[in-house]
Amino acid sequence: MTWWRQPVQPLDENARAVAQARQRQLTKPAGSLGRLEKAAVELAAMQGRARPGIAHPWIAVFAGDHGVVEEGVSAYPQAVTGQMLGNFVSGGAAISVLARHLGATLEVVDLGTIDASLELPGVRHLHLGPGTANFARTPAMSAAQLEAALQAGADSVARAVATGGDLFIGGEMGIGNTTAASALACALLGCPARELVGPGTGLDDAGVLHKAAVIERALLLHAGQLDDPLAGLRCLGGFELAALAGAYLACAQRGVPALVDGFICTVAALCAVRIEPACRDWLLFAHCGAEPGHRLLLAALRAEPLLELGLRLGEGSGAALAVPLLQLACRLHGEMATFAEAAVAERQP
Amino acid sequence: MTWWRQPVQPLDENARAVAQARQRQLTKPAGSLGRLEKAAVELAAMQGRARPGIAHPWIAVFAGDHGVVEEGVSAYPQAVTGQMLGNFVSGGAAISVLARHLGATLEVVDLGTIDASLELPGVRHLHLGPGTANFARTPAMSAAQLEAALQAGADSVARAVATGGDLFIGGEMGIGNTTAASALACALLGCPARELVGPGTGLDDAGVLHKAAVIERALLLHAGQLDDPLAGLRCLGGFELAALAGAYLACAQRGVPALVDGFICTVAALCAVRIEPACRDWLLFAHCGAEPGHRLLLAALRAEPLLELGLRLGEGSGAALAVPLLQLACRLHGEMATFAEAAVAERQP
Repeated sequence: MTWWRQPVQPLDENARAVAQARQRQLTKPAGSLGRLEKAAVELAAMQGRARPGIAHPWIAVFAGDHGVVEEGVSAYPQAVTGQMLGNFVSGGAAISVLARHLGATLEVVDLGTIDASLELPGVRHLHLGPGTANFARTPAMSAAQLEAALQAGADSVARAVATGGDLFIGGEMGIGNTTAASALACALLGCPARELVGPGTGLDDAGVLHKAAVIERALLLHAGQLDDPLAGLRCLGGFELAALAGAYLACAQRGVPALVDGFICTVAALCAVRIEPACRDWLLFAHCGAEPGHRLLLAALRAEPLLELGLRLGEGSGAALAVPLLQLACRLHGEMATFAEAAVAERQP
Repeated sequence: MTWWRQPVQPLDENARAVAQARQRQLTKPAGSLGRLEKAAVELAAMQGRARPGIAHPWIAVFAGDHGVVEEGVSAYPQAVTGQMLGNFVSGGAAISVLARHLGATLEVVDLGTIDASLELPGVRHLHLGPGTANFARTPAMSAAQLEAALQAGADSVARAVATGGDLFIGGEMGIGNTTAASALACALLGCPARELVGPGTGLDDAGVLHKAAVIERALLLHAGQLDDPLAGLRCLGGFELAALAGAYLACAQRGVPALVDGFICTVAALCAVRIEPACRDWLLFAHCGAEPGHRLLLAALRAEPLLELGLRLGEGSGAALAVPLLQLACRLHGEMATFAEAAVAERQP
C-alpha cells in the first residue's frame, strides 16, 4: 500500500460547533461577515480549536518543464521556466514579493526543467528529467517519475510541518503547464477540450483552438488510461502537477490546511480528491481566476473561493493574496466582543 | 459658493502613464495580476508617483439615528446605534479589530443618536439632533443639519490629511440606515423601491415589502425635491450618509484616495458624484455586498470592486478588508523585477 492510500485526518467537529456558536454571539448581525465567517469556522474544524489562526504560511513553488511545448502551445519560450526559478529566489517574482510581505516561508522546488544541469542557490533541484515527455505522443511521465513527484510534494509538506507551518500554499511554474492541466482536467471531468481550454498566459484565439486540438488528440491516444486519476496524472500531467497533488494528499494526512491557488493548482486538487475523496476536507480555495475552465473545476469541487480578481499568473500568487483575508477572518472571529461582553442588544424576536 | 462646489484635484496622468509602462515590464504575463494591476495604476495617478503605496489608512465611522425606524423597518432596537459606539472605541466591534490589525487610525463620530446626552470617551459627539426626523412624514434633516453633517465629513478628511493619512475609509452605523440609503438610492437612480430594497441587517420577506412600501410613500411625499442630489440627501438621507458624502467630496478636493465600503457608503458616494461628478476620480470601490441594490449602484458608478464576500455589516469593514489587497497590489507593482532586471525572456512575438 503506497503512502497516499493512508488515512486522512478527521476534522474536529466539536471545535467547529463551538466556533459556530461563537459566531452567533459576536456583535454583528448573524452572517453579516459572509464567506469570512465560514472560513473561520472551517479553519476551527481543521485546527481543532475554537479560535483558529494563521501565523506561519508556507509557500512551496513547484516547477517543471513540459514536452508538449514542442506542439506550439505556449506564448513564452521554454527557457522561461528555469529563468523564473532564479527570479523566485532572488526576490523579483510576484510570489517572492508576496511571501516577503506576508512573512511566509518560500521554498522553490525544481522537479525537472529542460536545462538538466541547472543549479541555483536556494532552489531544491530534483532532476526528475529534462521536463516531461510530449503527452501528445507518449505518456508524460514514467511510473517512477510520477512517484518521485508525488513524494516531492509530500516532502515539502513534511518540511512545512517540521518548521511550524500552519497553512500550506502550493504554487507552480512551468511553460506549457496550462496545456497539461487542461488535458488532465478534461480527463477528470469527462469534458471535451473545447469546453475547457483557455488562453493560459496569453494565447490568441487561433492558439487556443490549436491547444484544444492537441489535447483532443492526446485524450484519444491515452483513452484507455484515463479512468484512473493516477494513471491520468502520469499520462497527461506534469511534474509540478503531481507534486501539488502529492502535497494536497499529504496535507490531509498530516492535518494541515491547504490553500489552493489558481487553475493549475485546482486541477491538481481535483486529481488529489479523485485519488482520495476525504482529502477535500483539508482544502480551502483562494480565488477564481481568468482561465475559463477554472469555474468548472471549482464547481466540481463544491468550492467557494474568496477572491475573483481576473488573476492568471500562478506561482501561488492568488493564494498568497488571500492569506490576509483568512488571517483577518480569524482575528474577527477570535477578537470581536460578544453581545453580552459589549452590552449591545440583540435583534428583536 | 459653498465649500463642496470648490474644484477637485486633477489626477496625475504622467504618473499613470509611467506606472502603466512599468506594469508591462514586470516579470509576469501582461495583465496576469488582473484588477490589482489597475488598482496600482489608479493609485499612481492619484498619488502622483509611479510607485504608489498605502502606509496610513484612516478609518472614520460616522453614526446617526433615523426617525424612519418608527415605521418598523429594522430588525434591531434603535438603542444599538449608541451601544455600538461604545463597542467601536472599546475595541470589540469588527471595524475595531480590523483597524487594529491594519495599523489604521480609527475615528468614531457620533453625529446624533436618540440619546442626545450620550458622552463616551474616545467618541466625537456632534449632537446634530436626536436622530433624523421620520422621512416618511417630513424631511429627514434641516438645511443646517445637512450642512453640519457634510462639514463633519470634510473635517474628518482634514484630520486624516493633517496626520499623514494616505487612504480614507468611511464607515457607518445607524439602525435604520439601509432604509434611508435605499430611499436616497431610488431617488438618485430613478428606480422603484421594489427593485432595489433588500433585507438590510436581517429583515424577512414581509419586512422587506413593508420597507419598500414605506420608501415608495416617502418618494411620493418628497417628489418635488428629488431632482437635486443635495435636496434628496436632506429629505431622505441620514446624518452619517451626509457626512460620508461630504467626506468623499473633501477627499477629491484634497487629493486623498477614498476606498468606498458597502451599500450605504456607495449610496453616499453616488450622491457625492451627482453633486460633483469629478469626485468620481478619487473613489476606489472595496466590495460588492449582499444587499441586492449594491450591484445597481456600482454599475451606475462604473465601479469594479475588489471583493465579493457576501458582506452586509457596514462600519467600513468591507473597505478595511480590501486594504491588504491594495497594499499588496502596490508592493507587487513597486518591487517586482522587470524582464531586463531578472534576465527573463519576454513572450514570443
